Parts: sequence; structure tokens; C-alpha cells
Amino acid sequence: MKLVIGDKNYSSWSMRPWVLLKHFGMAFEEVLIELDEPGTKSSILAFSASGKVPCLVGDDGFAVWDSLAIAETLAERFPQHALWPRDANARARARSVSAEMHAGFGEVRNHMPMNIRKVKPGAGATPGALADVARIDALWRECLAASGGPFLFGGFSIADAMYAPVVMRFNSYQPKLSPEAAAYAQRVSALPAVAEWVEAARRETHIVQDDERDDE
Amino acid sequence: MKLVIGDKNYSSWSMRPWVLLKHFGMAFEEVLIELDEPGTKSSILAFSASGKVPCLVGDDGFAVWDSLAIAETLAERFPQHALWPRDANARARARSVSAEMHAGFGEVRNHMPMNIRKVKPGAGATPGALADVARIDALWRECLAASGGPFLFGGFSIADAMYAPVVMRFNSYQPKLSPEAAAYAQRVSALPAVAEWVEAARRETHIVQDDERDDE
Ligand SMILES: N[C@@H](CCC(=O)N[C@@H](CS)C(=O)NCC(=O)O)C(=O)O
Ligand SMILES: N[C@@H](CCC(=O)N[C@@H](CS)C(=O)NCC(=O)O)C(=O)O
Repeated sequence: MKLVIGDKNYSSWSMRPWVLLKHFGMAFEEVLIELDEPGTKSSILAFSASGKVPCLVGDDGFAVWDSLAIAETLAERFPQHALWPRDANARARARSVSAEMHAGFGEVRNHMPMNIRKVKPGAGATPGALADVARIDALWRECLAASGGPFLFGGFSIADAMYAPVVMRFNSYQPKLSPEAAAYAQRVSALPAVAEWVEAARRETHIVQDDERDDE
Repeated sequence: MKLVIGDKNYSSWSMRPWVLLKHFGMAFEEVLIELDEPGTKSSILAFSASGKVPCLVGDDGFAVWDSLAIAETLAERFPQHALWPRDANARARARSVSAEMHAGFGEVRNHMPMNIRKVKPGAGATPGALADVARIDALWRECLAASGGPFLFGGFSIADAMYAPVVMRFNSYQPKLSPEAAAYAQRVSALPAVAEWVEAARRETHIVQDDERDDE
């Protein structure tokens, strides 16, 4: 399998399947395409008609794109790993919070762009972004209380991978979180697969100007 | 099962699981909450902590929210119905186009709000919305060419349910489509489950002001 991704510092959607594959020890080859350059689109289109990363390409050239579709497909093809929680009701909840993330939280996405190397407490804290932060905080607390932690549904699952880029945004912009949510963000940050992605992001030198803007 | 939905005329996310349940003949009770009224939020919160519709509630009170998570959960719980295509590669593709829809096409969403009773050719045709329309058209053509139709992956599946609200938007605002895409939109509109939703939407009298705006 090849996983086609964007810059580790910026590509929030790419981080999700990468962390998932790493955490569960599934073998894959990484293809990194720098975003926002003149050749970016055509490089991505060589792998995926969607023109977007991430994209998972099988040895037969078959492509699955979109982070959530990649996650569901991996869960189906590697049933030996608990990518989703094993309990059916927990799984339904995990899918709910994952899909809610996938389609939602536009204000956090817009005003707190993922930029792992950046630390700027208070930036992007618009009322809309803070409302998203409050919903995310409540949702994490609920899941952790129900499962007992340490991750949203006990062991690390797709749901945590979906929120890992949000943790990166919170590390950069540091909106106020409940103690439970802050502790969860720390546990996600400390996960070896996440730490490895972050270290690689810090070593990158390519800049995407649009994600460097401040939204204060 | 109870499916909690918003106004049929406006609630694009609600239409997806409703059409899916109807089409496959799965029994459910419908709970309709009018959107954008002072009591809307608290009525929804009584069913789902997400504060959003749609939400599927089991007889035990267990709730799954978010249209895509509901679809995946139904696919898992009713394996006798081909909610996803039976072929694994087709299923991976169906998940890709469904998740791409779920997270994307923000310009069509913003500028061509679903409003089934409205017919206003040319409205909402911003450059961004037309770029989304072009991608959707290409994606439909590719899927139909690969499967042979009549629906995206042969028989009606979750992927078609995900795009059914887009078909409604295209019926209202009538952006130019390829002949293949236009024919597909007609087949979706003619599906009994879709026609039943549309008829009910036409009979509704409740107005959501924000979805009545024109974006020309
Ligand atoms: N819903 C998609 C979104 C993917 C997406 O928007 N990717 C961005 C980078 S993070 C991209 O590929 N942009 C490149 C471009 O548009 O040229 C997913 O979850 O994978
Ligand atoms: N990602 C969610 C989105 C659901 C959503 O945004 N629903 C809207 C209506 S279509 C809603 O419930 N709005 C009510 C409110 O915010 O008060 C899904 O797919 O179900």
C-alpha cells in the first residue's frame, strides 16, 4: 500500500490515516506531495481523481481517497486490528463523532488552521471557533467518561485519529479546555505515532503561505 | 427505530438516511422537528447531544447521529440489504465518493441551499459553486461508466442517498450538467422513496428564512 499525503506540518486530513496505519503497525509506503505549489494538483491527480490528499493506493493501482473512507476501508480489510471499537454500540457512537468531525467544525478549521510548528496562544479565537471548541470539549468528555479512557473509546481507534489534527490545532492556539479534554490532548500528543508525525513536521522547511495567516 | 429529521423541504442531511430507510423498506417511525424555531435546539437535544438532525434512535434509546454514521451503522446492522455495493473495490469507491460529499462541496452547500419548493434557474452559480458542480458531474459520470448504472454503483446505494440532496439542489437551480449527469439526476428524482420525500416537502408550509435567500 502507498499512502499519498501532503506536508506533515499542514495537511490535517493526511495526518488521520497516517497515524492510524502507524499506530496499528500496518506496513505502507509514504508518498509526500508538497501542497500549494504549481505542480501540486497534477502530482496528486496522478494518484487520485479527487485531486486531494490523502489517498491510499493498493498494489493493483486501486485508489481510495478521503480520510474517512480510507479509515473505513482499512477497518474492513484488517479485522484483526480494532480500528473501530469492538462493541457495536460503542462503534456506532465512534462513527457518529468521527462523521461529525468529518463534516463539521468549520470555524475551527478556518480560523485555527493546522500548523504544527506554530505556537500562538489566543489566535483564531473567534466566537464561532470557540463554540466549536466547546462542542469538541464536551464530546471528548462524554466519550471518555463512558469508556473510562485513556482514548475516546478505550484503546486508540479511528475516532482518535479523526481528532488528532484538532489536538494539533489546540496545541498551537491553546484555547481554554476542561482538565479532562486537556489531559486527553496530552495523551494523543504523546502517542508514538503522533509524536513521529510531529517530529517530521518540525523538520520540514516547505511553507504554505495560506496556512500561515493569523486570524485574530 | 425512530428517525429524527428536520423539515423535508430544507433538511438536506435528513433526506439521506430517510431515503435509504424507505428505499430498502426498513421499518421506522419518523419524528419531524421544524428547524430554526426558538424550540428547535431543545427538541433536538432531547434525542441527540449533537444538537443536530438527523439522528437515529433505537428502541433502547441508543442514538446514532450524523447522516453518514447512520448509513454505515444501518449497513452493518442490516447485511441482508446491499446498502453498500457487495464488491469490495466498488465499496471502497462508494465510500470515497460518499465521504468526499460529506466533507466537501461547501460552495454548492452555501450558494445553492436545498429548498425543494424553489425553482430559480441560474441562482447561486458562483465560480466556486460551479467548480463543485463540475467535480460532482465528473464523479457521477465516472461511477456510472464503471458500474453501467442506473445508479452510481449499479443498484441504489448509500452513495446515491448521499447525493440525493444535491440532485434536489440541481433541480432547483439548474446548473448546466452533462447529459449523463442530467439523466442520473432524473433517475434519482424518479425513485419512489425520493418522490415521496419531495411530495411531502411540497405539502409543508413552514418557512426557514435563511434558506430562502438568493445567492445570485
Ligand atoms: N475530505 C477530504 C479532504 C482532503 C483535502 O481537502 N485535502 C487537501 C490537503 S489537507 C488537499 O489535498 N489539497 C490539495 C489541493 O486542493 O490542491 C479527506 O478527508 O481526505
Ligand atoms: N454532519 C451532520 C450535519 C447535520 C446538520 O447540520 N443538521 C442541521 C439541519 S440539516 C441541523 O440539525 N440544524 C439544527 C440546528 O443547528 O439547530 C449530518 O450529516 O447529519
